[in-house]
Amino acid sequence: MNTIENIIIIGGGPAGHTAAIYAAKALLNPLMLEGFMAWGVPPGGQLTTTTEVENFPGFPEGVGGLELMKRMRQQSINHGTRIETITVESVDLNKNPFKIIAGGKEYLTKSLIVATGATAKRLRIPGENKLWQRGISACAVCDGGLPIFREQRLVVIGGGDVACEEALYLTKFGSEVIMLVRRDEFRASKAMQERVFKHEKITIMRNTEALECIGEKVLEKLKIINNKTQEESTLECKGLFYAIGHQPNTEFLQGQIAVDQEGYIITEKGSPKTSVKGVFAAGDVQDKVYRQAITSAGVGCMAALEAEKILEEQREKEK
Amino acid sequence: MNTIENIIIIGGGPAGHTAAIYAAKALLNPLMLEGFMAWGVPPGGQLTTTTEVENFPGFPEGVGGLELMKRMRQQSINHGTRIETITVESVDLNKNPFKIIAGGKEYLTKSLIVATGATAKRLRIPGENKLWQRGISACAVCDGGLPIFREQRLVVIGGGDVACEEALYLTKFGSEVIMLVRRDEFRASKAMQERVFKHEKITIMRNTEALECIGEKVLEKLKIINNKTQEESTLECKGLFYAIGHQPNTEFLQGQIAVDQEGYIITEKGSPKTSVKGVFAAGDVQDKVYRQAITSAGVGCMAALEAEKILEEQREKEK
Repeated sequence: MNTIENIIIIGGGPAGHTAAIYAAKALLNPLMLEGFMAWGVPPGGQLTTTTEVENFPGFPEGVGGLELMKRMRQQSINHGTRIETITVESVDLNKNPFKIIAGGKEYLTKSLIVATGATAKRLRIPGENKLWQRGISACAVCDGGLPIFREQRLVVIGGGDVACEEALYLTKFGSEVIMLVRRDEFRASKAMQERVFKHEKITIMRNTEALECIGEKVLEKLKIINNKTQEESTLECKGLFYAIGHQPNTEFLQGQIAVDQEGYIITEKGSPKTSVKGVFAAGDVQDKVYRQAITSAGVGCMAALEAEKILEEQREKEK
Repeated sequence: MNTIENIIIIGGGPAGHTAAIYAAKALLNPLMLEGFMAWGVPPGGQLTTTTEVENFPGFPEGVGGLELMKRMRQQSINHGTRIETITVESVDLNKNPFKIIAGGKEYLTKSLIVATGATAKRLRIPGENKLWQRGISACAVCDGGLPIFREQRLVVIGGGDVACEEALYLTKFGSEVIMLVRRDEFRASKAMQERVFKHEKITIMRNTEALECIGEKVLEKLKIINNKTQEESTLECKGLFYAIGHQPNTEFLQGQIAVDQEGYIITEKGSPKTSVKGVFAAGDVQDKVYRQAITSAGVGCMAALEAEKILEEQREKEK
């Protein structure tokens, strides 16, 4: 028979690791399934695709996203967390202990923390699939430094903070960066807008959408449309970077816990509790408002503390 | 006429500094009033009275409480936060801009984040006031190393995690540490209980309460009672450390925002919003459940992001 774990944590971003640190310090002997390039992202989550993190408190000079996640992972291990680099395929939450299938193996656990985050969205326009990773990317920071993009015209799609960050990052490599913004306005914070507006290498095209990616072996052109005038045109570019929002990574739950229309796990307000007792959610998988490393970490801590309470209850019942 | 600030943050703990970092990065030019030994605690808050912080994510080998707060304070400053080391005396939240009185000066602000934390409770038993800081302390970590406590019998009152931590800390200095626990059980986590139970220098007295502090110039004895048998006795000791919970630091608000029976600021669940629009609360002043540095920091971030939204709304109205 399989061992029954006290607590399994799915996901190894700031939420998952903070949960692991707290669970390990509470001697719950947590097991983390951090994923193997789950949803296309390395263990550590979205922060691993960021360069400098300036707003995580405790690092006055900033800290690299990858470095911060390495530090959190080491801290989880130092306190006794066991980490397996495999991706969860499915779960069965119908009864406790819950069943988790990952890497073809079956795991049983008394409590579960889902901290799988969210994934960058794609446009799904013609040519996108064919040219994906051949000039098209959803992560400027991961791919922007590749030789094919050096001194080329690069395009970023999106008008949020991330889009602005990616555009600014790409100015290091490209000769020119064009931002396509669907609406008349940016969603980005004033601070970020100001930074892109005043950057000499960045050009903004408002009311503009991409229609098709064109190229033989690599991206060469982008067909675009001005959605006010309906005028179509072609934009030569060697790089296209998507920054148009995220999709929560919840499909493996197959509707076994309540999610909203967009797929985000529904939690009790101000709590990591989901619709299934003993299952908690933390980080971007349940947060479409704040989405910060520090807010994710806070909820990860809450999830571990709530899991500890549930486990204590279970122990008392078993007496 | 006074300058009207965008945002004033009262308090300089993890919640206050995370709010400041986010507000500063959003170019809101925040002003922090961190307090001058407000509620008896140095700027930085309760963490400054802790030794090692092992569970703040990002520090695999742990970090000193004081060091962590120095780092956060420096980060706030690096991003442009102005910090004044004065204590807020009163506020007028009846209309916007809000009025803050501190150090005899008047400040005006469009938004306010209250992150004043909570203060250790006292028992208010006879002899306590007279002998306060003459053998009695609410902070083992601050005072435990004083010469008067060396190789002496020391007493800790409380049965929570903090009480256990303080008892363990005091074993470094005292010859013996006695924990008085009012109930039959500890509130502390299993992990902490285990650590105190197996420590050879720590003795536990359950169902026991302190009745009176006795001593001429310094604490010499403690009168105690077993609340099951009603038997009174006298315990010789040179040090008495309170670890019996906290009082939220909200009296300066004088009922101008909604607080609960214990004085904690009531916020919308899962949000830093208080009963007054434009006033936000973060950290232990509004949290009696989790009370962790990382959860406080998370809510501090949320408070800054919400304040930014409110200020944006105000700007649009003014157009």
